[in-house]
Amino acid sequence: MLGGSATYFSVSARYFSPVKIVAVIGEDFPASHLAFFKKRDIDTRGIITKKGKTFRWEGEYSGDMNEARTVATHLNVFAEFDPVIPAEYKKTPHVFLANIDPRIQERVLRQIPRPRLVVSDTMNYWILHKRRQLVRQLPRVAIALFNEGEAKLLSGQPNIVQAAQGILKMGPRRVVVKRGEHGALLFSRDSLFCIPAFLLEKIIDPTGAGDTFAGGLIGYLSRCRKCDDAALRRALVYGTVMASFTVEDFSLRRLASINQRDIQERVKEFERRHKL
Amino acid sequence: MLGGSATYFSVSARYFSPVKIVAVIGEDFPASHLAFFKKRDIDTRGIITKKGKTFRWEGEYSGDMNEARTVATHLNVFAEFDPVIPAEYKKTPHVFLANIDPRIQERVLRQIPRPRLVVSDTMNYWILHKRRQLVRQLPRVAIALFNEGEAKLLSGQPNIVQAAQGILKMGPRRVVVKRGEHGALLFSRDSLFCIPAFLLEKIIDPTGAGDTFAGGLIGYLSRCRKCDDAALRRALVYGTVMASFTVEDFSLRRLASINQRDIQERVKEFERRHKL
Repeated sequence: MLGGSATYFSVSARYFSPVKIVAVIGEDFPASHLAFFKKRDIDTRGIITKKGKTFRWEGEYSGDMNEARTVATHLNVFAEFDPVIPAEYKKTPHVFLANIDPRIQERVLRQIPRPRLVVSDTMNYWILHKRRQLVRQLPRVAIALFNEGEAKLLSGQPNIVQAAQGILKMGPRRVVVKRGEHGALLFSRDSLFCIPAFLLEKIIDPTGAGDTFAGGLIGYLSRCRKCDDAALRRALVYGTVMASFTVEDFSLRRLASINQRDIQERVKEFERRHKL
Repeated sequence: MLGGSATYFSVSARYFSPVKIVAVIGEDFPASHLAFFKKRDIDTRGIITKKGKTFRWEGEYSGDMNEARTVATHLNVFAEFDPVIPAEYKKTPHVFLANIDPRIQERVLRQIPRPRLVVSDTMNYWILHKRRQLVRQLPRVAIALFNEGEAKLLSGQPNIVQAAQGILKMGPRRVVVKRGEHGALLFSRDSLFCIPAFLLEKIIDPTGAGDTFAGGLIGYLSRCRKCDDAALRRALVYGTVMASFTVEDFSLRRLASINQRDIQERVKEFERRHKL
């Protein structure tokens, strides 16, 4: 099925703002998937096609729906990915560096001279194997995203508050900790914001929830053109609400079928449920 | 160390309202512990002393601090407990039925003619072995407390929203699901309220957090003399804040050393952290 960080992020963010993808696909990538992006007016000029097969991930969830167990990862054309940012992309103000080798994230940033906001994601593999490069990059990042285990691994702190504070010392202006069905945390040097997830009666597949969350978060910040504490809190609500759609079905089925009214209604319901 | 549901509950609730304990102790119960309750102006006339040893629980936490593993339970004098409610207690408006055999909970309620509010707690053991008695009792309960696993076990539903809705059909007016470090949920037939826990930099021992939470919740409701949706939401905040003190040290060390100002400051900090 169609998936991947760029896919979930783009479809989510596109509800708020124009989106330009940078990615690599293989010759096997179905034309219908590319048509899917174009139909949604997502800029695909940064998608390059290489000889070989597209990246493919296989995973399973059992019991704890917050963390997937990887069954197989086929890097394929992704292994040699060296992103070239098209000229039309160079003035992009909001940049999301999805989970990839931090050296590649660095090469992307070098090609975008003055972004207003950079948000990064990562995973345990890079924290363990490319730690130096990852840490070197953090001062350039406005918001660094982690799940709970990643934040603890990078900081060496078993407590999540201390873990986030340890990472803030490495340079990012803010740290966001994604906790799956338990919500998300936003840390800055002097404040902490904490929201639960949007509780659902039925969860089909959590794959893509994290990238969908990032799409709602950055999409919202891009649309409202602010990045103060109040805007960031709203952005976390939007990220949470967007992710709640993704998990309601496989692949992009649910996320791609909603409209602005669905989003607004769920944001209102979220507010009703969490008003102190 | 001093512990137990009645202890944590009473000390927590006493910050808000007068408290009367009903309990049984053995001849080994230190006089200093009884003096501790009296000093805090907690009514101990419902504590009876029986021949033998006091109930004793031993547990450990490893990794997941949300659920304890029981190492040993010595029922001792608790095995034959048949609570007799003193005459002076019979007009108590707010009753907390802590985790105990549902037949004993029933016998307590029979001795208190017209309580304004009854809150109950339970555990997996009673759900598995005294299910019929437990379910028979639920219609008399205004707020039924569960942790996530208990709610799923009682309802037979793996999704927490469906689990709570299933339990509401059994008769309690509200269901509260305690999720440890992930906060708490309040369900009524037509609304859902969801709050995170108070994030801490250091957690020493979660033992007693659930009963401390119940103490803050009922203590607050007793003080404000309301039980509408707004009061209940505030009550959950107070329960959450009180529990956050308990887990900061062993036994009652931290919970018993705070004052009204500590509580108000933490409630304010909680509001700052969770304002949407």
